[in-house]
Amino acid sequence: MRAQAVPMSQRGIDDLAARLRQFAADRDWEKFHSPKNISMALSVEVAEIVEHFQWLTEQQSRELDRDKKGEVSQELADAFIYLVRLADQLDIDLLAAAEHKLEINETKYPADQVRGSAKKYTEYD
Amino acid sequence: MRAQAVPMSQRGIDDLAARLRQFAADRDWEKFHSPKNISMALSVEVAEIVEHFQWLTEQQSRELDRDKKGEVSQELADAFIYLVRLADQLDIDLLAAAEHKLEINETKYPADQVRGSAKKYTEYD
Amino acid sequence: MRAQAVPMSQRGIDDLAARLRQFAADRDWEKFHSPKNISMALSVEVAEIVEHFQWLTEQQSRELDRDKKGEVSQELADAFIYLVRLADQLDIDLLAAAEHKLEINETKYPADQVRGSAKKYTEYD
Amino acid sequence: MRAQAVPMSQRGIDDLAARLRQFAADRDWEKFHSPKNISMALSVEVAEIVEHFQWLTEQQSRELDRDKKGEVSQELADAFIYLVRLADQLDIDLLAAAEHKLEINETKYPADQVRGSAKKYTEYD
Repeated sequence: MRAQAVPMSQRGIDDLAARLRQFAADRDWEKFHSPKNISMALSVEVAEIVEHFQWLTEQQSRELDRDKKGEVSQELADAFIYLVRLADQLDIDLLAAAEHKLEINETKYPADQVRGSAKKYTEYD
Repeated sequence: MRAQAVPMSQRGIDDLAARLRQFAADRDWEKFHSPKNISMALSVEVAEIVEHFQWLTEQQSRELDRDKKGEVSQELADAFIYLVRLADQLDIDLLAAAEHKLEINETKYPADQVRGSAKKYTEYD
Repeated sequence: MRAQAVPMSQRGIDDLAARLRQFAADRDWEKFHSPKNISMALSVEVAEIVEHFQWLTEQQSRELDRDKKGEVSQELADAFIYLVRLADQLDIDLLAAAEHKLEINETKYPADQVRGSAKKYTEYD
Repeated sequence: MRAQAVPMSQRGIDDLAARLRQFAADRDWEKFHSPKNISMALSVEVAEIVEHFQWLTEQQSRELDRDKKGEVSQELADAFIYLVRLADQLDIDLLAAAEHKLEINETKYPADQVRGSAKKYTEYD
């Protein structure tokens, strides 16, 4: 048995996914939680992140005050929750998929060729 | 010291964040990676997830074939990468923030009151 | 001179664009209205449209009641306002661009080949 | 009867809506075009606009070159097409809705109180 004293941040994504599954089951919400609908909810939550940054300069976005950071943190949590839920439904391991994608990106964007440039990799071909 | 043999899925989000930080530094891309810009990139990647589901029925979205699942997996990875990068820049612990938000949601949406209904919690007040 | 009695719906997009230009100028908001920022604001408003539909079935989305339709109408207005503002800034004629795109789409998706299928045109090549 | 020689930009949104209706009917695509699905497609197209601006500075976004402007123009057209289609399905007059919303905004953000500030109107209350 898992001791409740261990904080989630040390337990990881699988535990969060299990808890979200239970949360939906307890409320009979699985019927609403098709991957299609969850992808929509994810996009809505990400837009709430974007909303915090839309009128800020890039520099201001690097210097959020404590209150603003707290608000953004809640929006990041919402987006993360739906992303984990969607990955769980599709049986996708987010960390493994990210690691795989990073390896692709490291090949696509060799550091010595793209240094300091934001051009998309296709433009290097 | 961490042995490289341990797969990322067992190491967690902090390791991914560190690797993304290094990836950007190696390419001198920190200047492009303002939280404002990363929030935009995150929204673009999430739209690429949505694109896979836009013309599917909810039922079809629950039954992706192997190829489609592989494609969606790459888009989830991209979204996850930008979400982890943004959280890292803002010094936000995604798992702790998600746990906190889940506790709020459990209070907002008591299972015995909202069972089977998708109404937003405000409509219950 | 234009008589104010003519409703905007008969005057068109150019008049709306002019009015939005004046609205921003009166508030000294042009400095916030870079195309980059307006694109973000547009995406946020479109997410507010999506939010209305995320937990509805497709059928329910075809049968909005009067109140819901009024709410969605305001979100459509917000999205349209930012789209017109962005097109005006970039000196793009929305109706001409749409007409041009429609002609492309009519060639890409010949009615007799794609009837009843939602496959993307690339999959027909 | 309307002469085909009149360019669409002088005919307006209603004509575009009618043409989109016909386009969908000719392909038997109405079944895919629920307002739910169209809202998703709209959000995907808007993300393609955002993608053009994500790594640009605000200043760069004000100075797109001719090629880039041509690309963005096509994305604006796609977004406009889905916005017009959605409004048509919901029987919403985009220009009238925008005019109504502008009047609300003029009351919410009095020019003499908000000049030069991007704070949201709620923060003025």
